[in-house]
Amino acid sequence: LLNKLIESLLSIAPSGMTRVQTMACGSCSNENAFKTMFIWYRNKERGYANPSEQEVGTCMINQSPGCPDLSILSFMGAFHGRTLGCLATTHSKVIHKLDIPSFDWPIAPFPKLQYPLEEFVRENAQEEARCLEEVEDLIVKWRQKGKPVAGIVIEPIQAEGGDNHASPDFFIKLRNIARKHGCAFHVDEVQTGGGTTGKFWAHEHWGLDDPADVVSFSKKLLTGGYYHRDELQPDKPYRIFNTWMGDPSKNLFLSEVLNVIRRENLLEEVTRSGKALLQGLYALQTQYPHILSRARGQGTFCAIDACNDATRDSIMIKARNKGLFMGSCGEKTIRFRPTLVFKEYHVHQLLNILNDVLAEHK
Amino acid sequence: LLNKLIESLLSIAPSGMTRVQTMACGSCSNENAFKTMFIWYRNKERGYANPSEQEVGTCMINQSPGCPDLSILSFMGAFHGRTLGCLATTHSKVIHKLDIPSFDWPIAPFPKLQYPLEEFVRENAQEEARCLEEVEDLIVKWRQKGKPVAGIVIEPIQAEGGDNHASPDFFIKLRNIARKHGCAFHVDEVQTGGGTTGKFWAHEHWGLDDPADVVSFSKKLLTGGYYHRDELQPDKPYRIFNTWMGDPSKNLFLSEVLNVIRRENLLEEVTRSGKALLQGLYALQTQYPHILSRARGQGTFCAIDACNDATRDSIMIKARNKGLFMGSCGEKTIRFRPTLVFKEYHVHQLLNILNDVLAEHK
Repeated sequence: LLNKLIESLLSIAPSGMTRVQTMACGSCSNENAFKTMFIWYRNKERGYANPSEQEVGTCMINQSPGCPDLSILSFMGAFHGRTLGCLATTHSKVIHKLDIPSFDWPIAPFPKLQYPLEEFVRENAQEEARCLEEVEDLIVKWRQKGKPVAGIVIEPIQAEGGDNHASPDFFIKLRNIARKHGCAFHVDEVQTGGGTTGKFWAHEHWGLDDPADVVSFSKKLLTGGYYHRDELQPDKPYRIFNTWMGDPSKNLFLSEVLNVIRRENLLEEVTRSGKALLQGLYALQTQYPHILSRARGQGTFCAIDACNDATRDSIMIKARNKGLFMGSCGEKTIRFRPTLVFKEYHVHQLLNILNDVLAEHK
Repeated sequence: LLNKLIESLLSIAPSGMTRVQTMACGSCSNENAFKTMFIWYRNKERGYANPSEQEVGTCMINQSPGCPDLSILSFMGAFHGRTLGCLATTHSKVIHKLDIPSFDWPIAPFPKLQYPLEEFVRENAQEEARCLEEVEDLIVKWRQKGKPVAGIVIEPIQAEGGDNHASPDFFIKLRNIARKHGCAFHVDEVQTGGGTTGKFWAHEHWGLDDPADVVSFSKKLLTGGYYHRDELQPDKPYRIFNTWMGDPSKNLFLSEVLNVIRRENLLEEVTRSGKALLQGLYALQTQYPHILSRARGQGTFCAIDACNDATRDSIMIKARNKGLFMGSCGEKTIRFRPTLVFKEYHVHQLLNILNDVLAEHK
């Protein structure tokens, strides 16, 4: 079993991370990652001493200090899952959130970049600086409120929220802010992990040796789970536990998938077809500027905005009727999520169909 | 796929329930069952109208009324899982709860019955009445606090909390209290479901046609999930959703397991060996009254208390060294959780080993 873990999940561990905890789905992964950060944070606060009698007593009845008023800072537009802990950090669609009780946790703005990037260098840098400043303000404010931020959770690309990107510089500075304020830094790679950005983990594009304290995954990894740095290992067994703790059979599948990715150099393929796809999307938005804008992407993890949601939906339906299935996210975004075997000739097929649909569009 | 669901999960649906939602684990099942109850409760409150602009706006930032201050009433000693929503209803062990933020939700006492039951009929009836009264008080109090109870969640036998039983009368009255106050009634059968109590669902022992609004399961069912009454079906698709929604391969396994249960009359076997096991435990506690007490059980879902936790642990280790593996729960309880193929001759093997261990015990 350990060998299978070494061949599968541990062979792709993010930089700086030697520990992995499997879970049955993405939400459970994030829930338990949050718990890991809370446990780590409280152990720091109490100097790794045993919990007080008061903590032991109050935790059984949901009250502080045993169940402390800690928080996780998340970003507007984020999606981190739909169980109650995760949902308190999810802010992308009403349908996810409505009617479900939540926590009073801080929510920072995620940068809204202007495209094409090369024309808005100064504006985008200012926008990212504004968001980072707000993050620091919120950390201070919530500490003053008595609900300190134990961790910051972020997607390397906000997926459900509309394929919102930020620069590596933004993430590097955010990681430093987390460190400065003693918050754990949790990168949620549930959508971005597994190779579609051209690297196995999207955070590798930031170029950091120590990119995060926790990295969670699911979907393309076939099993849910999260990696973390040694320091975040809970102090006692069974603090993070459940009946199944994932499903070991998924690791067998994953190690075969990883063999194929390596043997067929699929990450290079993704980089190549991603470039062709993005170039094609640039060309389409130049040709149809009244319909399309903001083409963006990393690897084949690409997206483009329509002028409004009705147009977006109509383009998607017409394309589907011609054999091209695309997804949507955010308010008016078309998102591309091809598999890892998506080659350059598939890109041309895709662009031809999309071009036909746009040419017919009134 | 639908046929497989009909052959597996739907063929064992609790009375009054026609709908099932699969999930990947027990915690996800309870989390989503809670969400289902919150959605149902809020739809009742707003008269099934569309949400207001204020609800739509506030839900994205975790605030009321969009994320309403609703609560789930649970019982001291309960275990319903370890994700943040579930954990707010779990009150069995410190290790589960410590350091994790929680909700201010009401917690009622679970009856502490005195054994042998036939000697404490009046006292136990009073104890159950006291707990039910407290439930009603808490529902009223939390409504006044502005955090109405949307649902009550309870295990038919509190398992992690120490194998705590209550009478069918207690559960029938509790179900009526839920109905009277407009709260959903959620029976968590994650530990008790699947046949070990001698019926497929432990709540069948209550003899109700309409035992619950929601019944959640996992473990022996091989997949997580929950049944619910028609009325609790969310008003829109994708309100309850995630990437995998369980794993259909588990239903294939389950339908084969159900075939074996039926073919080999395993529920009758469980009833027979459960009776023998409980009789044997009664005999042992009569023989070793300074060590054992409170033998109790339903089917083979049996337990007995040791005089203290050190004795309990020592008995368990000695028995294990003689080939008998038992579990623990609560403070000083030994619990029995044999599989469904546990026959009467296994009971005698078990009792012989346990008798040897007790005879040697100083």
